[in-house]
Amino acid sequence: MIQKLRKIIIESDTVLGKIFDYFIQFLIILSLITFSISTIPDLSPKIIGLLYVAQVTIVLIFTFEYGLRILLSRKKLKYIFSFYGIIDLLAILPFYLSTSIDLRSLRIFRFLRLFRLFKLFRYSKAIHRFQHAFSLIKEELILFSLVTCMLLYLSAVGIYYFENEAQPELFKSIFHSLWWSVATLTTVGYGDIYPITIGGKIFTFCILMIGLGIIAVPAGLLSSALSQSKSYQENND
Amino acid sequence: MIQKLRKIIIESDTVLGKIFDYFIQFLIILSLITFSISTIPDLSPKIIGLLYVAQVTIVLIFTFEYGLRILLSRKKLKYIFSFYGIIDLLAILPFYLSTSIDLRSLRIFRFLRLFRLFKLFRYSKAIHRFQHAFSLIKEELILFSLVTCMLLYLSAVGIYYFENEAQPELFKSIFHSLWWSVATLTTVGYGDIYPITIGGKIFTFCILMIGLGIIAVPAGLLSSALSQSKSYQENND
Amino acid sequence: MIQKLRKIIIESDTVLGKIFDYFIQFLIILSLITFSISTIPDLSPKIIGLLYVAQVTIVLIFTFEYGLRILLSRKKLKYIFSFYGIIDLLAILPFYLSTSIDLRSLRIFRFLRLFRLFKLFRYSKAIHRFQHAFSLIKEELILFSLVTCMLLYLSAVGIYYFENEAQPELFKSIFHSLWWSVATLTTVGYGDIYPITIGGKIFTFCILMIGLGIIAVPAGLLSSALSQSKSYQENND
Amino acid sequence: MIQKLRKIIIESDTVLGKIFDYFIQFLIILSLITFSISTIPDLSPKIIGLLYVAQVTIVLIFTFEYGLRILLSRKKLKYIFSFYGIIDLLAILPFYLSTSIDLRSLRIFRFLRLFRLFKLFRYSKAIHRFQHAFSLIKEELILFSLVTCMLLYLSAVGIYYFENEAQPELFKSIFHSLWWSVATLTTVGYGDIYPITIGGKIFTFCILMIGLGIIAVPAGLLSSALSQSKSYQENND
Repeated sequence: MIQKLRKIIIESDTVLGKIFDYFIQFLIILSLITFSISTIPDLSPKIIGLLYVAQVTIVLIFTFEYGLRILLSRKKLKYIFSFYGIIDLLAILPFYLSTSIDLRSLRIFRFLRLFRLFKLFRYSKAIHRFQHAFSLIKEELILFSLVTCMLLYLSAVGIYYFENEAQPELFKSIFHSLWWSVATLTTVGYGDIYPITIGGKIFTFCILMIGLGIIAVPAGLLSSALSQSKSYQENND
Repeated sequence: MIQKLRKIIIESDTVLGKIFDYFIQFLIILSLITFSISTIPDLSPKIIGLLYVAQVTIVLIFTFEYGLRILLSRKKLKYIFSFYGIIDLLAILPFYLSTSIDLRSLRIFRFLRLFRLFKLFRYSKAIHRFQHAFSLIKEELILFSLVTCMLLYLSAVGIYYFENEAQPELFKSIFHSLWWSVATLTTVGYGDIYPITIGGKIFTFCILMIGLGIIAVPAGLLSSALSQSKSYQENND
Repeated sequence: MIQKLRKIIIESDTVLGKIFDYFIQFLIILSLITFSISTIPDLSPKIIGLLYVAQVTIVLIFTFEYGLRILLSRKKLKYIFSFYGIIDLLAILPFYLSTSIDLRSLRIFRFLRLFRLFKLFRYSKAIHRFQHAFSLIKEELILFSLVTCMLLYLSAVGIYYFENEAQPELFKSIFHSLWWSVATLTTVGYGDIYPITIGGKIFTFCILMIGLGIIAVPAGLLSSALSQSKSYQENND
Repeated sequence: MIQKLRKIIIESDTVLGKIFDYFIQFLIILSLITFSISTIPDLSPKIIGLLYVAQVTIVLIFTFEYGLRILLSRKKLKYIFSFYGIIDLLAILPFYLSTSIDLRSLRIFRFLRLFRLFKLFRYSKAIHRFQHAFSLIKEELILFSLVTCMLLYLSAVGIYYFENEAQPELFKSIFHSLWWSVATLTTVGYGDIYPITIGGKIFTFCILMIGLGIIAVPAGLLSSALSQSKSYQENND
């Protein structure tokens, strides 16, 4: 009996095991949708009630699954302190905390429910190739993060000197200018903050010419690392 | 006689067949242009009349072509239920539906006329290479779509917690925040919704640093798959 | 004597020839700068006078160079009707047209002065690698231009159906919606036109997910073609 | 004694040398943070005092380090006029200049303090791969900078002719139009300046179709050069 359940819940190679996996994944998505709907203001009491029932049911199933996993795993402590063991706990804990104590003051714990999303990772095999690709370019990504941070900081200091006098409200300090750097170098350009002086505009042009090339590189590195990782997997399979 | 028409309309290898193909393509483009012009408000009755005549003429020619294709194909049922057979039907059907019954309530069927655009695909040989490249990276594209959706959702939840109190009208619910996620992570940045709190701005910076690399990867994968697909075609031709 | 001049002006292998080339390039840049300055409104009469003198001097030198090139080339007609021969003529013609006849009505001819910019190409050797890379991916670029145009059109029709009722002033017709498509799919996002209905926002998300991958591909193709073109040149040199 | 100090400060292979390096890097970051905080307006006198003490302490340590480096290096003049020697001097000089003479008129010298940031480069080994990758594509980067500048100029002239009459305040001269070119072709799109005429919008579409491909290429070249540089390093190590 235990042997059969273990096959279904932990190993998930059989047909029943796969159905169980898809059922849990469906519940995770459902849980995220009910959570999202519950943030809409001015919902009717009927819908709030329905959402509450759905959330309680899902958490009870997750708790039941968590219990089963502890019972069925051969090395119980190893599972409890593993990555997925902690995520499984974090996905249900906030619910029990917020119902036993006052709800309002603990609203922030709700955020932890998002850990349920990471449960999806367990069921995906393709995620391993992704992890391999990341490990291949780890060094480059760190270097580029550093260069990007330096570039953002230097451009923030530059624009601060050019625009601070003309727009003292928007470019108040280097921290305010950093927001401009982020919005500009990522080319998002919301339009809430932009240079108006000639110096600031020429500086923006220069920093964009240098920055665009640097900020777009990690994506190129990642895509070539994924190709490498794919051909590596195909050769080893 | 039927043999000759078959060569012109279905096989399109001869000079006359190519002229027929270009003529149909020209009509498709013309049909799209007249359709676009007819959406302009406050047109003079003369232009509306001209557009109507053009549309009727084009649809009649398409109907004639559709009939000919059924008559000339050796396996009639196979053509009718093939991809292009259905598109050819969908491209003319809305016209007949909207003229026999009341026009206004069926305006939505007009949208189906766009299927005429897909008729263009039949005449393009290069589209095969494109399809091959897509099949090469199908798995990666699905994985990246999933990761992108998760990233969009997580960033929407994050910004909701940071901005909901400061801008309750714009960041009303997680669904409203999702619109911000889409506009920001694709770097479109319309400027209709953006963070104003310090926490929200720092969160935007973090999510952009992670997100830009991930969202730009599929384009890199597609371009390298196209190169692969090209060299594969050249070796096999 | 003619032999010597030919070496300097046409072949430009000697030191004097290179100095002549750099001098002409300097004049092209100078001509563009004076042209740009002359568009600034409310200039003082003194500066307008100076600009006029500069422009006249430059055009006279260009005319002299054009005459010399005709005189010195062995096949005069071949030069006159060559690509650079026509550009050399177009670069000086607007000046003579606009001074002999009324200036105002011929303002549009001023635009032709920009052909001077293309004169810079003659002096660049690296431009050949660029042309080679383009010829390698010509087919793909045409296919992607087509797919991009279809995508722009389809997204314009889609957003028209979603937003026309909510924002009849901005999404007046499919042509107005096309402007939205261009600003959105290129991720420029000026913020002058954006969807406000839920349907329109979901549609924007879908079209961006598909579109971003497709629109960014040509850049990836071009950069890999340039790498190919470089290694090809290095092997043949 | 001097031998030991030399090992710690200049060679930095030993444990103590690494601790010293990390300490200096920590001070550089701290110095940048205090500098950034000091630009916030309306700080309390207490915080201004604390920031001043921190800045003085850091500069004194940097001065001490600079002195030690001169003393300990075998070829003193070579160090003083080396890249890092000059940066080390420039990082401390502004402080002494601004305290001995009047502070306000010399505010601009504060900018030089940013040279401290470049001190971080000394401690990074991975920066060499980056420099190698740049040297591999130097020619292409110069060519693309030229093409980008030409494209920016041509699009500025084009939009000036289309929009100058409709929006004389925004598209005042070609220099004002250049700002539009920069914001549009980099896809930042702040939304402070955009075309409103039909001609201007069609022109924007054309220039974006050509420009996007060209402006995104350097990033692709850089990422492939980095891959090359990496495999080159791995083969030589």
